Amino acid sequence: MSPGASSRPAPLAIIAGAGRLPAEIAAEVAARGEAVVVMPLRGVADADFAGFAQEPIGMMDPAGAVAALGRLGVGRIVMAGTVHRPGLGLVLAAWQAALNRDEIRRIVRGGDDNVLRGVIAFLEHSGFPVVGVRDVAPGLMAAIGLLAGRDPGESAMADIARGVEALRAFGPLDVGQAVVVADGRVLAVEAAEGTDAMLRRVSALRRHGLLGRLLRHGRPVLAEHRGGVMVKAPKPGQDMRADLPVIGPRTVRLAVRAGLAGIAVEAGGVLVVERQQTLAEAEKLGLFILGVAR
Amino acid sequence: MSPGASSRPAPLAIIAGAGRLPAEIAAEVAARGEAVVVMPLRGVADADFAGFAQEPIGMMDPAGAVAALGRLGVGRIVMAGTVHRPGLGLVLAAWQAALNRDEIRRIVRGGDDNVLRGVIAFLEHSGFPVVGVRDVAPGLMAAIGLLAGRDPGESAMADIARGVEALRAFGPLDVGQAVVVADGRVLAVEAAEGTDAMLRRVSALRRHGLLGRLLRHGRPVLAEHRGGVMVKAPKPGQDMRADLPVIGPRTVRLAVRAGLAGIAVEAGGVLVVERQQTLAEAEKLGLFILGVAR
Repeated sequence: MSPGASSRPAPLAIIAGAGRLPAEIAAEVAARGEAVVVMPLRGVADADFAGFAQEPIGMMDPAGAVAALGRLGVGRIVMAGTVHRPGLGLVLAAWQAALNRDEIRRIVRGGDDNVLRGVIAFLEHSGFPVVGVRDVAPGLMAAIGLLAGRDPGESAMADIARGVEALRAFGPLDVGQAVVVADGRVLAVEAAEGTDAMLRRVSALRRHGLLGRLLRHGRPVLAEHRGGVMVKAPKPGQDMRADLPVIGPRTVRLAVRAGLAGIAVEAGGVLVVERQQTLAEAEKLGLFILGVAR
Repeated sequence: MSPGASSRPAPLAIIAGAGRLPAEIAAEVAARGEAVVVMPLRGVADADFAGFAQEPIGMMDPAGAVAALGRLGVGRIVMAGTVHRPGLGLVLAAWQAALNRDEIRRIVRGGDDNVLRGVIAFLEHSGFPVVGVRDVAPGLMAAIGLLAGRDPGESAMADIARGVEALRAFGPLDVGQAVVVADGRVLAVEAAEGTDAMLRRVSALRRHGLLGRLLRHGRPVLAEHRGGVMVKAPKPGQDMRADLPVIGPRTVRLAVRAGLAGIAVEAGGVLVVERQQTLAEAEKLGLFILGVAR
């Protein structure tokens, strides 16, 4: 084929968990005129994919998934949406059987638990490149600048700078997609508990936890006032195909309940799910959302 | 006075909040034959100080406290024990009135909330040096080596190394007296919530929070297994007079409930309250406590 020639590209497959994100991706990709096929995970995916080619697959059936991918002539895969599921060991076993165990072990090194990385490795070994949401639907990622609410002001901007600094320091340790900073002080760091749990913790701290502490051999804290920000960004080297930082309407509500003035996200690095609702809710509740450069 | 000559030194004053720590300090100081006077905070201190000179003071009465310190010829002060109290604003106002407000503002800079540092500054301005627990009762601090339980083993030692590394990285940001690490992964970072809350969070994560997550746009986590360690140490530059890292019997119970194999503390940097009970409980519950070099 000579340079510049092109044929209709092989379709993008969206392996879809629960929630509206897979449908949002499908819509953005289709809007560009690109071919897309949604592969809803049976018993998990719950959005309406009407209008898109669909090919349901089973989470316990990697061989069936690969056969379907081949049949459809899929060029690239993106995985999106939530999967809640007990029986994790069973799922892992199914995919481990399909892939060399030593390799799985290398991938999920140190007893680590990132099953998704194993799944990605399996799919790529089977000949299907896996890409991230931002590669195929960059419009879903946070843009730079003020996305909702009013100008943060000097104090919030100082807290944001502090939060960015903190995330940068934590990055090499694979800790902390998000922090909460108020009055220049880091109130909470997200590790394994997730962003929602961290925001709920800040609410609780402000409601009752720390109000009463003055003089103790631990540290004295006075945090009943409102204000402060959450800063969220990918960790350096984070595999955005397996682990994509997200904010959505619930993040907004939890941030408001935690008394925060706003949310700062790394532009291009954090996905805004249910964008319209997220931004409208932030506007309504008086929370700013700011996209900051990396 | 010629070198080598000595007179009976001025007594050490222990400003005592709740809990047994002030009495433990008094006992250790007295055992060395040094003069000590306990100044229980009225309505707060609750330990038995029988056998020691006592001079109760009121938390809202800085002038009265200073008068008593002068009357007793106190040489140095240590503050210890817990103070839970609403009306924090009132207390702060009482001490602020006694000290220049700009100075207070500089001390508790950036809207920070470390009232204790203000109290320390006030006492030192009044002519009474404030020292830390480890200066006067080093025997209460964690020693180096295995303090309770069995040898941690290779995997726990690797987690400890990771935790130490994490605390070191967080230090400059004034975050994190403690972290929980399992399988090389930082599961939780303590910020404003305190060590107990962090350990409870790890329990909850392991009980139900993360069991079900496999594939989501957040990060997948499999943390139902037991194991891992808590590492606790002072932050670099931490004022040990105002904010002393502590473990005690409750820390041990919470660590066990979180499924941890052990606790590592910086030798000389972390206080073991109710030492006998703490170590006995750890032995009984099969939790190791290890003092590690800085």
